[in-house]
Amino acid sequence: MAYSGENAGKIVEAILADYKKQRIIDKIDDQFDQPNKEVIIGIIDNLMKIVYPGYFRDRTYKSYNPDNHVATLIEDVMYRLNRQIVKVKKLTGEQDGISPDELEKEAYETTSEFMRRIPKVREYLETDLLATYEGDPAAKNFDEVILAYPGLFAITVFRLAHELFLLEVPLIPRIMTEHAHSLTGIDIHPGATIGKFFFIDHGTGIVVGETTIIGNNVKVYQGVTIGALSTRGGQRLRNVKRHPTIEDDVTIYAGASILGGETVIGKGSVIGSNAFITKSIAAGTSVSIRQQELQMKDNSSRTDSSWNSEK
Amino acid sequence: MAYSGENAGKIVEAILADYKKQRIIDKIDDQFDQPNKEVIIGIIDNLMKIVYPGYFRDRTYKSYNPDNHVATLIEDVMYRLNRQIVKVKKLTGEQDGISPDELEKEAYETTSEFMRRIPKVREYLETDLLATYEGDPAAKNFDEVILAYPGLFAITVFRLAHELFLLEVPLIPRIMTEHAHSLTGIDIHPGATIGKFFFIDHGTGIVVGETTIIGNNVKVYQGVTIGALSTRGGQRLRNVKRHPTIEDDVTIYAGASILGGETVIGKGSVIGSNAFITKSIAAGTSVSIRQQELQMKDNSSRTDSSWNSEK
Amino acid sequence: MAYSGENAGKIVEAILADYKKQRIIDKIDDQFDQPNKEVIIGIIDNLMKIVYPGYFRDRTYKSYNPDNHVATLIEDVMYRLNRQIVKVKKLTGEQDGISPDELEKEAYETTSEFMRRIPKVREYLETDLLATYEGDPAAKNFDEVILAYPGLFAITVFRLAHELFLLEVPLIPRIMTEHAHSLTGIDIHPGATIGKFFFIDHGTGIVVGETTIIGNNVKVYQGVTIGALSTRGGQRLRNVKRHPTIEDDVTIYAGASILGGETVIGKGSVIGSNAFITKSIAAGTSVSIRQQELQMKDNSSRTDSSWNSEK
Repeated sequence: MAYSGENAGKIVEAILADYKKQRIIDKIDDQFDQPNKEVIIGIIDNLMKIVYPGYFRDRTYKSYNPDNHVATLIEDVMYRLNRQIVKVKKLTGEQDGISPDELEKEAYETTSEFMRRIPKVREYLETDLLATYEGDPAAKNFDEVILAYPGLFAITVFRLAHELFLLEVPLIPRIMTEHAHSLTGIDIHPGATIGKFFFIDHGTGIVVGETTIIGNNVKVYQGVTIGALSTRGGQRLRNVKRHPTIEDDVTIYAGASILGGETVIGKGSVIGSNAFITKSIAAGTSVSIRQQELQMKDNSSRTDSSWNSEK
Repeated sequence: MAYSGENAGKIVEAILADYKKQRIIDKIDDQFDQPNKEVIIGIIDNLMKIVYPGYFRDRTYKSYNPDNHVATLIEDVMYRLNRQIVKVKKLTGEQDGISPDELEKEAYETTSEFMRRIPKVREYLETDLLATYEGDPAAKNFDEVILAYPGLFAITVFRLAHELFLLEVPLIPRIMTEHAHSLTGIDIHPGATIGKFFFIDHGTGIVVGETTIIGNNVKVYQGVTIGALSTRGGQRLRNVKRHPTIEDDVTIYAGASILGGETVIGKGSVIGSNAFITKSIAAGTSVSIRQQELQMKDNSSRTDSSWNSEK
Repeated sequence: MAYSGENAGKIVEAILADYKKQRIIDKIDDQFDQPNKEVIIGIIDNLMKIVYPGYFRDRTYKSYNPDNHVATLIEDVMYRLNRQIVKVKKLTGEQDGISPDELEKEAYETTSEFMRRIPKVREYLETDLLATYEGDPAAKNFDEVILAYPGLFAITVFRLAHELFLLEVPLIPRIMTEHAHSLTGIDIHPGATIGKFFFIDHGTGIVVGETTIIGNNVKVYQGVTIGALSTRGGQRLRNVKRHPTIEDDVTIYAGASILGGETVIGKGSVIGSNAFITKSIAAGTSVSIRQQELQMKDNSSRTDSSWNSEK
């Protein structure tokens, strides 16, 4: 039986009728010009080439004057970022009452200021690279860290997105960090504040919340949450500091959770694996959880099904 | 030294000879027409545009009549999905004894029924969106949730795949949810049953097993497993209810594990972080694990290597 | 306001001036010819088609003589892999004093030897497939495992990358396994040694360190770390065995951590969920953590905010 358009016609009608119910998920109006996620990912790719100019350059690089090549990349990022910023400013309704011309001008100023901050971001990333290499005995050289380590990639995208967040650009910073989250399993909200020499090992399952403050020279391992104590308050908690402060030189081992907006982990502390911390820790403290009591049984004679009932 | 075809010839021969060993991983026969993962991902992309029509529309959208554009998307999905369903029905051998014509007809009926369910899926997704926005103080607006939140994306793909699972389409539902798993770290088996207003925060590391039943208004945080108590029985446990039932209005905080096919979490319960639950919990119960005993040491004088031996 | 090149000119100048600071992240010199991550991912894609010839073949496959088609794939992989190996050998400076001709020859020998090992890798992967299917009651058939399971994909990429690691190819093996890590959340260092019949369930959050040794018939669940006890020693610990040895027939349930280079998990042992192991375990032992003391409270009368203070 060949594919029949008749049946499809009714299905199309039913779905179009469903759009008339005016759900939030529809948003089919002419004014709505959503930002383009693929364009934003393309901007991140080009920013990687600008931030690490020797590492992610295009294969055709050598046939260009390198300076001209970088200039082209920068102008491309500025042009596309500017357009996306105009869209999201319109989209989120924050520009009510501002004329289209003023909006364009404001977006252009924001884009320019963002680009002016690239050297500062690069200064921080150099320190993150050093911390990552020094902290991981499996790292063979700097090249491996830059080309393959998910932690440095997630930090790079975070540091760029954070500057846009500080410039009060809606939506785009979060789309950027969620792209890095998708590729790395590392979920750093663009609102977090993170000092120099930040080191993430392995990375999968790390969460760093919006109002977190992290000092210099902090190391974080896989599965660590720096989060809110409870978000049952939902939207009523917006703009409240809900996430911890981590001072300089702190190490947080795998699986630890540090929660709450008033929780401060003092300078130089070491938080052991799987610790669950909801209160402040004094500077220079090593925190570990009491050794689990492990129960050992000889399983040589058991059947497959008996193990379940042991638990 | 130039690349030499001579050496390659021997390598090709050795690998072709290896295929003659008739391993399961070979499956080189003419009958075998595997489903195409890239096509299935393309179907998901177009389904996103149909489900959230204002949010993921193509950039060229405005030049079309919007209704015609949606009609084109729907017909494209139907055509491609139909072809993939024909392939997997042949592939998994479930159509033995059925004529090719009947198989085509059956696949077409399945595709049509799936498309008829899109409005119902959209009705559920609207509730998931509301739950996600309300539950997360970091969410600035609905647009951010739809465009950037991995949780809503994973739920969307799950709800679509689940309908195909109910229609007994082999393989494709799992390829769909594993695509979402890959992008989000959220692993929801298409066989799970999930009510309205489902909220996933952060998401990475969440596992929801095949025979799980989840009610309305349930919140799940990162690293939560809703899984089997033990799968040592392997294939012998197929078709047994191995995963828990979660009633309405339950919240499950980060890192908790709820295991076992007879485990029921009663209505309105709250399961605290890292709790490990293998028995049923009465309705309206807050479960938390006893506070860990934390061991604190002043680490100001220790050397780098001493910390290891403290553990 | 139109986009203005004037402003962009100053931004370009500032960034080019920043490159003059000679940071490690710059590496703008003519000698530096970085490996191309996209090409390496393309090599993985073609290796998947060679390893599982019936499953990931191109749609146009049937119009070719299958043998010729595989020959084309193999020659493509060899050509591109050879070029990337030449690049990384130059890049990491391990070829100082070797002439370009010798370097090309060495890279070609390495590429050829890698390809000769494909049948051995396939022999191992057939056992991994059998272990995965047998171990998971949700697996409907072998096709689903090969086409959709992230665990088998991560193991496949690991086994290929491991052979390049053994052949002392720098950088490329890690780029390969980090690609799989990005797609699956499973982080297996290419230096690890893993026996036959390896089974990974769900996968997200698994870490297997560089000097790990794993026997035959081992099962590993989501969130398991087989890692170092502490890496505070950083680069000084390079080339030290820092990760455990897991003997044959061991099962490691979700969330367990097994740490330390001298830790040996004896044959046939079962490590329970969330166990934290830093010492060796005798063969045939079932290890479980003492049941958590769960605290239960009736939450039917509490307000939203009271729950926080209960913790």
